[in-house]
Amino acid sequence: MRWTDYDSKVCSVARTADVIGDRWTVLVLRDLFNGIRRFDDLTAHLGIARDILSRRLSALVEAGVVERQPYQEAGHRTRFEYRLTEAGAELRPVMVAMAQWGDAHRAGADGPPTVVLHRACGARVHAALVCDRGHDILDGAQVVMRPTAAARLIAHV
Amino acid sequence: MRWTDYDSKVCSVARTADVIGDRWTVLVLRDLFNGIRRFDDLTAHLGIARDILSRRLSALVEAGVVERQPYQEAGHRTRFEYRLTEAGAELRPVMVAMAQWGDAHRAGADGPPTVVLHRACGARVHAALVCDRGHDILDGAQVVMRPTAAARLIAHV
Repeated sequence: MRWTDYDSKVCSVARTADVIGDRWTVLVLRDLFNGIRRFDDLTAHLGIARDILSRRLSALVEAGVVERQPYQEAGHRTRFEYRLTEAGAELRPVMVAMAQWGDAHRAGADGPPTVVLHRACGARVHAALVCDRGHDILDGAQVVMRPTAAARLIAHV
Repeated sequence: MRWTDYDSKVCSVARTADVIGDRWTVLVLRDLFNGIRRFDDLTAHLGIARDILSRRLSALVEAGVVERQPYQEAGHRTRFEYRLTEAGAELRPVMVAMAQWGDAHRAGADGPPTVVLHRACGARVHAALVCDRGHDILDGAQVVMRPTAAARLIAHV
């Protein structure tokens, strides 16, 4: 069997892309990771239309990645803020891997505009590929994706 | 200074999202990582319209992530196949991190449909967050993204 014999949609990458495979969604998640929680702060920082932000946040809530929590300031009506759920917070390696690719390949003359740090020790953080036996994987050709028994063969006619 | 004081677009995550922040593009890259190279094989496997695939591939070529190489089979005219460039291959940690999120959060009753393996030893591969001093980072709250001198402050009026 070859990779093309299996249903493209029955795949963990495809399923994750269904949730975050959209430029605005990536930026919303980045800002949530960076502690921005309020609708007005997100819309102002991202320069995104309110209806687009609203749709992206609703989809993330629906997907279980973000939760919506009410808050109220004195003299104002109840508003909502948005936080990553535990499942959402587990997207962090995707964000860090994206940041490091941008650092390496889109830094421009001034160098990388952002840096990801380990709060406890101050050193830079990167997304490393590691196998369960503890080998660091430096050669990408050593990484292979395989279908499991839960994959679905395409019915050829 | 707070995160919202800095230009949202001058950011390595945003710049990477400009290249891969699109569901079809993620699936095209996944298939290229899995050794699918020919236009007809990609369009058949992905179930994507030819013009959409063509536009996504052109954008990836333009971005320096994919290269287009001619090939010719006996009796046919020259066609093209697509391969990841070195920069494209460095997107692998993003793919692996996406696969592992899908495995963890979208596996369904049958379990994960795909598995990422270390070819040399057969063990599973994951995208781990590691700092330059070698600490494994298990607590996401220990990871922080900061602007550098190359970031751009937003001019407030």
